[in-house]
Amino acid sequence: MSRVFNFNPGPAALPLEVLESAQRDLTDFNGTGMSIMEHSHRGKAYDAVHTEAITNLSTLLGVTDDYHVLFLQGGASLQFAQIPLNLLGAGQTADYVNTGAWATKAIKEAQNIGTVNILADTSKDIPTTMPDYATLPYTPGAAYVHVTSNETIAGTQIKCFPKTDAPLIADMSSDILCRPIDISQFGMIYAGAQKNLGPSGVTLVIIRKDLLARAPDSLPTMLRYRTQAEKNSLYNTPPTFGIYILMLVTRWLLEKGGAAGIEKINQAKADQLYSTIDNSGGFYRGTAVTEFRSTMNVTWRLPSEELEAQFVKEATALDMSGLKGHRSVGGIRASIYNAVPATAIESLTSFMKTFQATNG
Amino acid sequence: MSRVFNFNPGPAALPLEVLESAQRDLTDFNGTGMSIMEHSHRGKAYDAVHTEAITNLSTLLGVTDDYHVLFLQGGASLQFAQIPLNLLGAGQTADYVNTGAWATKAIKEAQNIGTVNILADTSKDIPTTMPDYATLPYTPGAAYVHVTSNETIAGTQIKCFPKTDAPLIADMSSDILCRPIDISQFGMIYAGAQKNLGPSGVTLVIIRKDLLARAPDSLPTMLRYRTQAEKNSLYNTPPTFGIYILMLVTRWLLEKGGAAGIEKINQAKADQLYSTIDNSGGFYRGTAVTEFRSTMNVTWRLPSEELEAQFVKEATALDMSGLKGHRSVGGIRASIYNAVPATAIESLTSFMKTFQATNG
Repeated sequence: MSRVFNFNPGPAALPLEVLESAQRDLTDFNGTGMSIMEHSHRGKAYDAVHTEAITNLSTLLGVTDDYHVLFLQGGASLQFAQIPLNLLGAGQTADYVNTGAWATKAIKEAQNIGTVNILADTSKDIPTTMPDYATLPYTPGAAYVHVTSNETIAGTQIKCFPKTDAPLIADMSSDILCRPIDISQFGMIYAGAQKNLGPSGVTLVIIRKDLLARAPDSLPTMLRYRTQAEKNSLYNTPPTFGIYILMLVTRWLLEKGGAAGIEKINQAKADQLYSTIDNSGGFYRGTAVTEFRSTMNVTWRLPSEELEAQFVKEATALDMSGLKGHRSVGGIRASIYNAVPATAIESLTSFMKTFQATNG
Repeated sequence: MSRVFNFNPGPAALPLEVLESAQRDLTDFNGTGMSIMEHSHRGKAYDAVHTEAITNLSTLLGVTDDYHVLFLQGGASLQFAQIPLNLLGAGQTADYVNTGAWATKAIKEAQNIGTVNILADTSKDIPTTMPDYATLPYTPGAAYVHVTSNETIAGTQIKCFPKTDAPLIADMSSDILCRPIDISQFGMIYAGAQKNLGPSGVTLVIIRKDLLARAPDSLPTMLRYRTQAEKNSLYNTPPTFGIYILMLVTRWLLEKGGAAGIEKINQAKADQLYSTIDNSGGFYRGTAVTEFRSTMNVTWRLPSEELEAQFVKEATALDMSGLKGHRSVGGIRASIYNAVPATAIESLTSFMKTFQATNG
């Protein structure tokens, strides 16, 4: 078997150890005589998986008893609506920061539901950037403040989360668990699983318990956070296989030294890639301002679109997959999530130097 | 490896061939060097899976160009709200038939959203039963008529779908693809995947195109059927692994002779089990009226709860799993979905005779 280096933006690389473990157990989970996919979500075998996933996430993120860890469905896209439906009351204002494509989508859904105040808009800035979160004009008494911790397309990432009076909500879809966070700063964090946590089809929501009461009873049962909070995410059948893979990923992260351990690895990977860009004498040009460069999605340009196409083509031939920038912005994007190994960065940076020597 | 006979009500048995195929390809899908879970939902490898899943489903269910085949998330539980949110306009009435626990949940959500007329209520009847669908007092000009084709807990199943003036909507979660249907009778059918289609986390919706326009623009993007209809279920990241398994299940069904082929197999399995019950001289007592007996969930009682507990315990020791009736009704339930092999029924009926001989 030959595995390629996978730089996909999401769904994305998973740790090979996790896949191999799932492979071994796929027709017979832990000697139970059936696949984890075939187990009842109310049975002992799955319950152990579900509980370990929550326990491991709580350990990795320092989640206290003030919060619920929920496994939902529908991705960040459904959260964009579910957040204001649950938390933005009539007559209230929600603060949003627009830092790119994903924040824009979150804002659009919220505007359809209630009153939104946009604190800053860097979504059209070139080079891509983020605002100074410490000095934004937060609305007194806002229902909440919504930020996007990592913009997958723009290649930008919040380096220091603000301390806000209103509950801070962060879309961490593309950088959750890439580093330690102080959960007490947040009212809620959420993430589609398909970048740093597991396969698509699971949405992780960690929400402070006092926020659950805000949702009106008129909201459909499945859209109220408290429905799943009261039932430990088992009100209805959860996406059991996805949660199982997520659990294996959390085990793998604990073995890597947890959030602090993986942060070091991630920083080293990102440093190697950015320094290759910065030391290319302008042949490679990073598209994000240095201050907000993402450690997860590294974006850059080449001197021409022709060279970019050639770069992607040659890299693909060398078993480096997923390097084409998002269709909306072009260029090159290397998504180097937790599960992308250091050897992938070595292979990529080595190729970048060769490519420049030939075409520079 | 020893596989048990899996009579779970859902998540439930999957064809061993499907699991083995997924197992082989889990770290390297079709020689692409990555797992199907790691592939982009917008790439060629996954696109072929997605397209084949839709094509196979269309073949198996006779779906014409008048319909969209959608892969959603949130299970039937979210559909219970999504249906009235999309299709029940202000001032309109939706007809519902209450045949048990699942219909009751669907009705409760709809009542929270609009005006509901309950055409018949057999949900409390003992023995469990269903009404005569041909003679129900359908509301003239109703927005739609909602039925539950198979009540998983009650062990009942619609044998002949009514021809209604209003669009007929059927929750087929627990018996989709167990038999051929005439799709032209329906405005929409839907099913959580975790009984007859694949793992939990995928919801199949097949909806007539003319119904898509009914949803108000004020409805959140992710809750409007037309959002995913316009994007071929790729508006956001779909649950790719679940759809992949579903695709493998549809391939397996085509090899079994499609819906008509599996219907014959299912009928033979159900006949064997029901005749064992009926020929037990009253030791085993079926809980559903003969006319509406489900071919998917076979429910029966023993002379005492003690014997029922002993029956489940001994069956489990003989590698027959999942036979305990739903906690709300007790008794025994054997869920014998498409993927439960005939050998499982032989094993079960053989055990039933031995158990009766010893304890009868």
